[in-house]
Amino acid sequence: PDRGNIVGGADEFPTDRYVLEGLASARGLEIRRHADKDTALVCRSLVDFRTSALGDVADLVDEAHAVGALAMVDLSHAGGIVPVDLDGSGVDLAVGCTYKWLCAGPGAPAYLYVRRDLQESMRQPIWGWFGQRDMFAMGPAYDPEPDIRRFLAGTPSILALAAVDAAAGLTGMTAVREASLALTAAFIDGVGAAAEVVTPEQRGGHVAVRHPEAAAVSQRLAAAGLVTDTRADLIRFGFHPLTSSLDDVAKAVCRCQVAFSGN
Amino acid sequence: PDRGNIVGGADEFPTDRYVLEGLASARGLEIRRHADKDTALVCRSLVDFRTSALGDVADLVDEAHAVGALAMVDLSHAGGIVPVDLDGSGVDLAVGCTYKWLCAGPGAPAYLYVRRDLQESMRQPIWGWFGQRDMFAMGPAYDPEPDIRRFLAGTPSILALAAVDAAAGLTGMTAVREASLALTAAFIDGVGAAAEVVTPEQRGGHVAVRHPEAAAVSQRLAAAGLVTDTRADLIRFGFHPLTSSLDDVAKAVCRCQVAFSGN
Repeated sequence: PDRGNIVGGADEFPTDRYVLEGLASARGLEIRRHADKDTALVCRSLVDFRTSALGDVADLVDEAHAVGALAMVDLSHAGGIVPVDLDGSGVDLAVGCTYKWLCAGPGAPAYLYVRRDLQESMRQPIWGWFGQRDMFAMGPAYDPEPDIRRFLAGTPSILALAAVDAAAGLTGMTAVREASLALTAAFIDGVGAAAEVVTPEQRGGHVAVRHPEAAAVSQRLAAAGLVTDTRADLIRFGFHPLTSSLDDVAKAVCRCQVAFSGN
Repeated sequence: PDRGNIVGGADEFPTDRYVLEGLASARGLEIRRHADKDTALVCRSLVDFRTSALGDVADLVDEAHAVGALAMVDLSHAGGIVPVDLDGSGVDLAVGCTYKWLCAGPGAPAYLYVRRDLQESMRQPIWGWFGQRDMFAMGPAYDPEPDIRRFLAGTPSILALAAVDAAAGLTGMTAVREASLALTAAFIDGVGAAAEVVTPEQRGGHVAVRHPEAAAVSQRLAAAGLVTDTRADLIRFGFHPLTSSLDDVAKAVCRCQVAFSGN
């Protein structure tokens, strides 16, 4: 739509914030916190990259569509750990990465979802030869494929896609989600008495704990064999159901109790 | 510069043509064949993707700088087979891929060169977290690195870079170039009596032959164990000095003589 602002959260995943900021700068758009009649796009993450708070795609769609804007959800911290029915949700666009819960390695390819009836009218800004109809004809003008293939740009990286292929071939998201909730519930129960858990009940696959000396605690945990990462005063713990057990969680809780107390 | 057109050849590598066309469409720019005082950028390939004709970076720089435009060279069909001194050439920008002569596999990462004194003033349009100063601070506003790092966007693909790392670690470009010229000269000599070679004396690493039934000839060659590809009525032959010998070229010439004659 030919509108003047984009909605994105101030606490959003930096990748989204920076990219939207660049887009806004190039197109003379503003970035706002809430949608109004001049909003072109509302973009929010399904799972908050810091707290693991789980949003609601339906709320996002309602907020955007109520003012005639497009709704885009970032699945980076949800894809592979939280089941999402994009076609059924009414969301217009979705993006995400495969190097987190899909375990396809650093810099693994990202993905894009475009609602079927928008595919023919939307264009991606980088007109690459993989989006071109009859690409090997190398025709004089750019004439993109009519469907989702038009959003491809260059030749995809085959080595990188091989890792994604393995991850995307796994099935059983319901079981993954159940196991993930069991692991994070056990960790929250176990660690809650010793630290401030900021992850709410409605959550994604990781758990965040606030600690004034987050970086130092994270280093002590690493020395004890527990790899975490920090975002300001938050320490993030990830438990992948395919590689972590309740026993691993119990061990992690013990190490946290020691590390949080400064030892 | 705040100018109204971009110069690119009508016969340029489709990836360049399509991307420039998309850029022109988004920014209201025109694409022209020759530079004038309203030209922002002149973009040409160093090696023609079809004929293998070798251009001159100095000519490109002269054409662009004479009107105050930026000069950009596409090294896709030159990188790894033709030595280029970018810093010494005065060119402003260069792009290229690593999946051709650098053998890093389909979809391997591309590269970008920006003349050192332009690095701080130019921005790339996709503001990703790898271009951000102090990226892990995940600060509120995008504040790009002052140097070439600002042109990075997302996390690079480690698997794909591993292949590039092997290719880029090879040294001895002068020897590669000499061997390449010897191989292509032998092929042109051998095949010239049987077919129309369109590759000029000043050439890159491949040789192109015109044939009215290029696709059928290419299939006959493939059946005989010689892999080529076609672009309209041109058949392209690539000889990599690291994997091909003069003996391979002699065998290729024999197979061509048979295949060109319709057998």
